[in-house]
Amino acid sequence: MNKESGRKHGALSPCAACKLLRRRCAQDCVFAPYFPADEPQKFASVHKVFGASNVNKMLQELPEHQRRDAVSSMVYEANARVRDPVYGCVGAISSLQQQINSLQTQLAVAQAEVVHMRMREFTSSSNTGAMDMAVNQDNMGESLWSC
Amino acid sequence: MNKESGRKHGALSPCAACKLLRRRCAQDCVFAPYFPADEPQKFASVHKVFGASNVNKMLQELPEHQRRDAVSSMVYEANARVRDPVYGCVGAISSLQQQINSLQTQLAVAQAEVVHMRMREFTSSSNTGAMDMAVNQDNMGESLWSC
Repeated sequence: MNKESGRKHGALSPCAACKLLRRRCAQDCVFAPYFPADEPQKFASVHKVFGASNVNKMLQELPEHQRRDAVSSMVYEANARVRDPVYGCVGAISSLQQQINSLQTQLAVAQAEVVHMRMREFTSSSNTGAMDMAVNQDNMGESLWSC
Repeated sequence: MNKESGRKHGALSPCAACKLLRRRCAQDCVFAPYFPADEPQKFASVHKVFGASNVNKMLQELPEHQRRDAVSSMVYEANARVRDPVYGCVGAISSLQQQINSLQTQLAVAQAEVVHMRMREFTSSSNTGAMDMAVNQDNMGESLWSC
């Protein structure tokens, strides 16, 4: 995607950021490639949470090839903060960490069961071996008596 | 903790936020309870990422009992963004989700092994039963011949 994505060529209609900030959308507007006019909510969220000048500054400090990812992560973070003004993204992190704890516990239980069953299998096969020997000895005894 | 936590009583030394913003720290300063003067880095991070006026607005919109958690999550988020300007907190979320995927795979493997071993155990105990019967039949056969 180039810098003009989301903008009407020729007419130079303002991007969502410039529209919200009521300013002229310059040809080299730093927001325009990432905040097209038809997705006004994306900029509204980052503007509310980070502030337009901070978003501008953060984008300017990054090389162009990293800006799209930075915008995506900022939009994600801003939406999370709008949905949950107390915990924002950190709420998601906390819930993922709980899920990890629960999975680690389940995994430990399953792995312990595998070890337990292997030991039982080993013990049982040793016993079967002993039983086989015992059966063979019985048979030998019988054949001795039958002689 | 009350509103005066982190402030020198009497002298009314400014909180970390008012010190950075070079403004008078009022008795009812919204930042003072959460940004004590001896932890200047906390406010510096949220100021850099969210902007002082956004942090102020977000705190004002929350009831007092939720503000400490909101500040903690904002500081966490801001530090993550300072460390990783492209992905911030979302980088942590993505890595936790990868960890969850890996744990879910390991769990599925362990649980499948448990099921497999149970089936083998069941089959083996059925075979042992059949073998016992066979041994008994053999013995019966022998005793018939020996008659």
